[in-house]
Amino acid sequence: MSAEALLQAIDHVAIAVKNLSASVAAYQKLLGAEVVHEEVVEDQGVREVLLKAGGSFIQLLHPLGPETTVGKFLAKRGEGLHHVGYRVRSVEQAIAQAKAAGMRLIDEAPRRGSRGTRIAFVHPSALGGTLIELVEEGTHG
Amino acid sequence: MSAEALLQAIDHVAIAVKNLSASVAAYQKLLGAEVVHEEVVEDQGVREVLLKAGGSFIQLLHPLGPETTVGKFLAKRGEGLHHVGYRVRSVEQAIAQAKAAGMRLIDEAPRRGSRGTRIAFVHPSALGGTLIELVEEGTHG
Repeated sequence: MSAEALLQAIDHVAIAVKNLSASVAAYQKLLGAEVVHEEVVEDQGVREVLLKAGGSFIQLLHPLGPETTVGKFLAKRGEGLHHVGYRVRSVEQAIAQAKAAGMRLIDEAPRRGSRGTRIAFVHPSALGGTLIELVEEGTHG
Repeated sequence: MSAEALLQAIDHVAIAVKNLSASVAAYQKLLGAEVVHEEVVEDQGVREVLLKAGGSFIQLLHPLGPETTVGKFLAKRGEGLHHVGYRVRSVEQAIAQAKAAGMRLIDEAPRRGSRGTRIAFVHPSALGGTLIELVEEGTHG
């Protein structure tokens, strides 16, 4: 039984940062990258800034507090790559394929992400230490 | 003085792995991702496998030995995200912008990457702990 081809693109690389404006400035100075979105995602305990990278995003994450997931990550590991978001045709189908492969999920059902997306996180144990977010574009973009 | 807009896309996310075939199988089972390239890059001390993610790649990196950069990374931090490759219009111009911003570079001039690309690494200190690879598509693709 082979899995369905669901992967459409890298939606984003997510980077935990201590200072959003300093990080935005660094990406602007190096690459001339443009800010296209900013949002507080209470559910994930972060303020995020999206920089446009073609059809993908550089997602800079700043924790809303020290007890959030990203706050703990910063305290433990410092700034750096936090997770990768993969854009898929169907989050439900990807969750089903993860379950069929015996992979551990953080979200057993899709929930709301930023920009009106539907998302689910796959546990890092499933893919060699890499935290993965499955992202499906919402109908309202 | 504002920087030139050089960023075209996320070229790849690079993930250090202990077992290439097991990692490939995991991405295939979860996302139905397809292998499109495999190459030994002696210069970087790695065997890499590229999985297609739209116009970007998931780059799985396996060290050629324990004394390579990725070998040391695996010994110290275990499997996981290693760096992000950003596709730019001009690696030279990006290097110039990095220098103008006072950023530390690993490569002061472009060198050859996999798939005939021209690349340069920017030191993690420049972008909040994230190792960045600048990637320019080669004329021979």
